[in-house]
Amino acid sequence: MHFADLLVKKIKVTSPICVGLDPRFEQIPEHIREDAATVGTAFFEFNKGIIDAVHDLVPIVKPQLAFYEQYGLDGVAAFVRTIEYAKEQGLLVLADGKRNDIGSTAEAYAQAYIGESGDFSVDALTVSPYLGYDGIKPFLELCTVNGKGIFILVKTSNVSSGDIQDRKVDDLNMALYELVAQFVDSWGHDLIGESGYSSVGAVVAATYPKEAVKLRELMPNSIFLVPGYGAQGGGAKDVVSCFKPDGTGAIVNNSRGIIFAYEKMDKFGPKQYAEAAREAVLAMKEDLESAIRP
Amino acid sequence: MHFADLLVKKIKVTSPICVGLDPRFEQIPEHIREDAATVGTAFFEFNKGIIDAVHDLVPIVKPQLAFYEQYGLDGVAAFVRTIEYAKEQGLLVLADGKRNDIGSTAEAYAQAYIGESGDFSVDALTVSPYLGYDGIKPFLELCTVNGKGIFILVKTSNVSSGDIQDRKVDDLNMALYELVAQFVDSWGHDLIGESGYSSVGAVVAATYPKEAVKLRELMPNSIFLVPGYGAQGGGAKDVVSCFKPDGTGAIVNNSRGIIFAYEKMDKFGPKQYAEAAREAVLAMKEDLESAIRP
Repeated sequence: MHFADLLVKKIKVTSPICVGLDPRFEQIPEHIREDAATVGTAFFEFNKGIIDAVHDLVPIVKPQLAFYEQYGLDGVAAFVRTIEYAKEQGLLVLADGKRNDIGSTAEAYAQAYIGESGDFSVDALTVSPYLGYDGIKPFLELCTVNGKGIFILVKTSNVSSGDIQDRKVDDLNMALYELVAQFVDSWGHDLIGESGYSSVGAVVAATYPKEAVKLRELMPNSIFLVPGYGAQGGGAKDVVSCFKPDGTGAIVNNSRGIIFAYEKMDKFGPKQYAEAAREAVLAMKEDLESAIRP
Repeated sequence: MHFADLLVKKIKVTSPICVGLDPRFEQIPEHIREDAATVGTAFFEFNKGIIDAVHDLVPIVKPQLAFYEQYGLDGVAAFVRTIEYAKEQGLLVLADGKRNDIGSTAEAYAQAYIGESGDFSVDALTVSPYLGYDGIKPFLELCTVNGKGIFILVKTSNVSSGDIQDRKVDDLNMALYELVAQFVDSWGHDLIGESGYSSVGAVVAATYPKEAVKLRELMPNSIFLVPGYGAQGGGAKDVVSCFKPDGTGAIVNNSRGIIFAYEKMDKFGPKQYAEAAREAVLAMKEDLESAIRP
């Protein structure tokens, strides 16, 4: 097993779409909320419906840990049930935790999320680079041993991402995010698989397409996880630069635009939220395909 | 309630020591491991002994989330029981999670850890700055509303912390960590309490004392959380520069050097791990006091 190879293979027969499983209690259809004993139960039932509706259309889902942690043990239990169910349905699971620490603490995070087994064991984890190589090395080691992956934050989608990431560094005449990209490329070198892609990926926002062009050059072997499509303002035109000319090399995340699609589609009521999600994925797939291969 | 004011008050009657509750199963005394049904139960029993032994000597404890997450739901349940017990014993609790995200996701993390209530609700949380102001704002808001605190990573203790943090930025003639320090100072401005300290603190390592001198100037109103004392190589001499001349302004963390002190003290066996921890705190207090006020 090699994470990037597996992901590339699954993308080929489905789509380059990552469905963000970011449940928000207030937005979950009433019939699920009413039947659920706890918030966590509602989260799981809601996610189950989404997974059933999209599992044959996408390679990977991405639960955002913050939304589960917000509800304590009950929320985290829903995360555990969700990743278990997603795996049963043949999906890869990327935990969006943006974890970061050093030494034995980073090892503990790595064991938690990309260890061989355990409640939180998934296929890949998002990781934050502020601590430097020491903070990444324990994750690289488990990627190698267990065939897992990480996605390192490089250029994020938010307005003030430039506070830190856009700073020009040293006399290198480059921005910090470009330096991080160089690190990502070199850190991922030993994890390149048969697909030509490394299990060390990069988070590169759709909201900064010009930057993405440079980043695509700096990290030729990294799969980009692209947030910011849809709700955050980026469209298919903007994500094109995250893909290679052959149409590979990126997965585009969409959370709210898919899981809460029913809110914006007249023809679906809250009880058809899963059908609405499926239709939103199909529409997104068409939108991406027409932009990637015009 | 104002986090920094409360912390400063507690430091005055105890010590500037933060005890890191980072349980490692292999290092927990055998009598606890044998009696415990699960790893999480062993973690809690072990932590309870430490808390009982040190609660009158220190203002705050810092459970490191990675060590709990490593054992899934069982581990996280031990985290919940630990913070509850620590609060009952009158201790402040700082969750070391280095969380970071943007927008509504950062809001969810803030609600999880510095919300008014909930399983994971503690007094303060460590936060990573790579995402810029958008990633910090939701935490600042809850600090204000709930009287809670955050500690933002500025300069970490690890060897490769310089990969990112030491980069010279722009034409400002300063390192990135100094720029982050300026942000921390300004982000914390509205949260300064009667003590003169802000509820927005900074993580500044003991392993880089020269840098700490500059950082002390750049963040006059921030309490420094100082890792790297003891096991990571920094001594009392090195942490002095994290304090102000009046002896206030920092808390020095020690995890392994306190909780597993029994391993290095001939006069205590594993069954006296709590007494050993108490003695280690007392020795550290003396060490710090003699260095801070020579």
